[in-house]
Amino acid sequence: MFGLGTIDPNVRAIGGSQEHDLHRRAGQIRAELQQGVSKPFSDVIDVSSGDSHLTGMMPVTFVRQVIAACLCPALIHSDDLPVDVRRRAQDLLAQLDGESMGSYTDSCGAPNVQRSVAEFITRRDGGVPASPQNIFICGGSQRALALLLEILIPNDGPPYTGVLTPVPTYKTFTMLLEETGTVMVPYQLCEEQGWVLQIDELRRALRDSRGHCSPKVLYVINPGNPTGHVQTMKSIAEVIQFAAEEELFLLADEVYQDTVHGDNSEFISYKRVLFEMGGEFSETVQMASVHSASKGYMGECGLRAGYVELVNIDHTVMPFAEWLIGTKICAPVPGQVALDIMARPPQPGDASYVQYTQEVQAIQETLVHNVRRAQEVLNSLPGMSCQLPEAGIFVFPRLQFHPQVAEHAKKAGVDADLLYSRRLLEDSGVCVSPGCEYGQRDGTHHLRLCVLIPTNTLDEMLTRLTRFHLRFMAEFF
Amino acid sequence: MFGLGTIDPNVRAIGGSQEHDLHRRAGQIRAELQQGVSKPFSDVIDVSSGDSHLTGMMPVTFVRQVIAACLCPALIHSDDLPVDVRRRAQDLLAQLDGESMGSYTDSCGAPNVQRSVAEFITRRDGGVPASPQNIFICGGSQRALALLLEILIPNDGPPYTGVLTPVPTYKTFTMLLEETGTVMVPYQLCEEQGWVLQIDELRRALRDSRGHCSPKVLYVINPGNPTGHVQTMKSIAEVIQFAAEEELFLLADEVYQDTVHGDNSEFISYKRVLFEMGGEFSETVQMASVHSASKGYMGECGLRAGYVELVNIDHTVMPFAEWLIGTKICAPVPGQVALDIMARPPQPGDASYVQYTQEVQAIQETLVHNVRRAQEVLNSLPGMSCQLPEAGIFVFPRLQFHPQVAEHAKKAGVDADLLYSRRLLEDSGVCVSPGCEYGQRDGTHHLRLCVLIPTNTLDEMLTRLTRFHLRFMAEFF
Repeated sequence: MFGLGTIDPNVRAIGGSQEHDLHRRAGQIRAELQQGVSKPFSDVIDVSSGDSHLTGMMPVTFVRQVIAACLCPALIHSDDLPVDVRRRAQDLLAQLDGESMGSYTDSCGAPNVQRSVAEFITRRDGGVPASPQNIFICGGSQRALALLLEILIPNDGPPYTGVLTPVPTYKTFTMLLEETGTVMVPYQLCEEQGWVLQIDELRRALRDSRGHCSPKVLYVINPGNPTGHVQTMKSIAEVIQFAAEEELFLLADEVYQDTVHGDNSEFISYKRVLFEMGGEFSETVQMASVHSASKGYMGECGLRAGYVELVNIDHTVMPFAEWLIGTKICAPVPGQVALDIMARPPQPGDASYVQYTQEVQAIQETLVHNVRRAQEVLNSLPGMSCQLPEAGIFVFPRLQFHPQVAEHAKKAGVDADLLYSRRLLEDSGVCVSPGCEYGQRDGTHHLRLCVLIPTNTLDEMLTRLTRFHLRFMAEFF
Repeated sequence: MFGLGTIDPNVRAIGGSQEHDLHRRAGQIRAELQQGVSKPFSDVIDVSSGDSHLTGMMPVTFVRQVIAACLCPALIHSDDLPVDVRRRAQDLLAQLDGESMGSYTDSCGAPNVQRSVAEFITRRDGGVPASPQNIFICGGSQRALALLLEILIPNDGPPYTGVLTPVPTYKTFTMLLEETGTVMVPYQLCEEQGWVLQIDELRRALRDSRGHCSPKVLYVINPGNPTGHVQTMKSIAEVIQFAAEEELFLLADEVYQDTVHGDNSEFISYKRVLFEMGGEFSETVQMASVHSASKGYMGECGLRAGYVELVNIDHTVMPFAEWLIGTKICAPVPGQVALDIMARPPQPGDASYVQYTQEVQAIQETLVHNVRRAQEVLNSLPGMSCQLPEAGIFVFPRLQFHPQVAEHAKKAGVDADLLYSRRLLEDSGVCVSPGCEYGQRDGTHHLRLCVLIPTNTLDEMLTRLTRFHLRFMAEFF
């Protein structure tokens, strides 16, 4: 019968996620509070994930209204909805197969959504052309990455494919590598310089990987998660040159592109830089870029929608990519509609333009305010230091613990930042994500906190964290 | 660089799908018609997929209203929606993380949806208990099957795992087997007896497979797709006994359970029979059953939602199943809500009960009428014979061609039923699915047609098919 002896060894090799346990424990505590168990706090504030609606951020009204009207075409005739919502829903339905959200779209996405996304990318990249047939709509960026790895990674034994991966990186990506039997080749980002990517470190990582795997893919996250670092055009060009020299496939995770908030920072896409480097690069370097409706101002994680753009993919591979994506059936249609709106937001003069713009702006202002506020408070705490992120929805402070904490954690068989996070959750009802989930230099410890949350929730969270932190640090001095 | 030499050999080994080409060609023809190209027909009728909304079947209003209200909570206060819709949306939101459709749920599904599904199964199976923690909510039944194969199939070289698979079977499943590097072990269903599953044939298939793979999984589709056959309790018990004797994992695809329309047919679940066979079986045979919101009266393919129930899974495997599912992030939340409604439809006394019941009944009546009508017309055609299906939304008639057709097809390098289907599409604008996509006994030919379509569309389709068929058959006599 099936037991551990018979299941896939890639799956078997993997332990459970500690972050998952924290999230689960947060749910249990919430249930205990509902059952009337007495705690030193009245609710759980969960800032461990990048799910902004979870902590009370509101959805963008226009997005929801259009999807609702597509689902219930009767609403297209309702005066309750703005005229541009109704027109948009009507246009979208007319282009969907069966004129219904209940029909499959093409496996690679509804053609009109592919077109909208291609136009969005072309505008974003100052005219560098994007073609709808290179856009694949997927059920979220993680599905897109899984698919890309499935296409790229031969699953036929040693030498195993290596994927150059930044450290720190978020957990679901490293889980994906483990699951596909791929070797993660870590390259360290430099915290002291604001988590910058250093080409020399890439070279070192690649050199060290030779012999125990076959490095073929370079994974970059820009803007960084969890770091919030934004690469300059120069840095991106260096990475592209490195990928070209070493014949690496460039996998660019750009899901935080809409959340740049640093004063002097700007998002520039890998594809744009690639094309500005001229034919030697723009016609040869193979790359993929992923984006999503889950992050940034939309925050529509639950709708599951993202896309991947493929660039310079060998024409012999393309039909197989299409085939493989074809076996996955299509992405959920409500999410595809959200992507279409991300790509084609209301324009000046449209009935919803003012409300849409105000809502998006308010979300962005909350983010900017919260990032600065969190960094300020965290930096004021003893044993805590926090780089100011330039983008994304997280802060990633470093913890400097007394050696006793490390000893204590070692005895408990956990990382010191996980020990800290567990205590923080039990004592204060604040659920954060420990640095050990992301990978970090030996002996360093971090926390990741989502700060795209309502400002009063942020204040409450920081108050609880401060109180806990001071007690925790005092305990070990 | 990446080329055919470097991509996954499982992916590389696979050719394109011919059905996919037909579907694509149907799209091109539709575009040509819009551009004013003259054809002997004014529109394309696409009955090649199991997507009933595609050909004009309407969604169930209650499903769409609840999802719309969950997306736009302002609608909860609108008098435009029935009171039970508003209450249901309010209840659902209160139980969702972040009280938003935009938040992730647990990776295995929203706990309230898991509970609803478990209660639905328990009711369906006359009290045989189902437990929410054995229910995994996925983005459609194909996602569920892919996940199960990923958990069950060791991906570590020969001997490759064999999966006993009915012939005919639908294409996405065989594509999935190819993609996971699994060996399909075909067992033939008996067309002459209404596509019945014969245990002796299972034994033969298993025996013949030994030596060139390691058969570990028995895949059954009940009600059958494309056959529409419904297994009796006795037949199911025989299959379970066989699986127990041969220590096979039983993978039961039961997505057409709500579409039984045969006069003397009844859907009985594998799990129910398993439990009625007593402890020797009910505590040992490992199985999984999948179901979906895409098929049957809902037809919500575009929302992407299904579930799998695991039974008797080794406790050492369960955490890995959870882990693996965890890396996939959650199923789209609008689809999860559709599943919840499938599991908990409106009850007598609820404001929407009458409309809901009438709509579902009308869909079922259309199905019953169309199946009989299609079978009657097809059986009246020379060289065509059609078993009367007892369930599902398809008819799967057999074609008997003149030997010249086979010769002609051989020259063109295609199966005769694909040749027929292409000509049918070009000449009449009717897109069907050729039997070669499903697998069939050598020398036999079939077509699969979806008949859950509006009755006037069915009539038009049958008229065009009849006209084409008579011309085609005359051409070769």
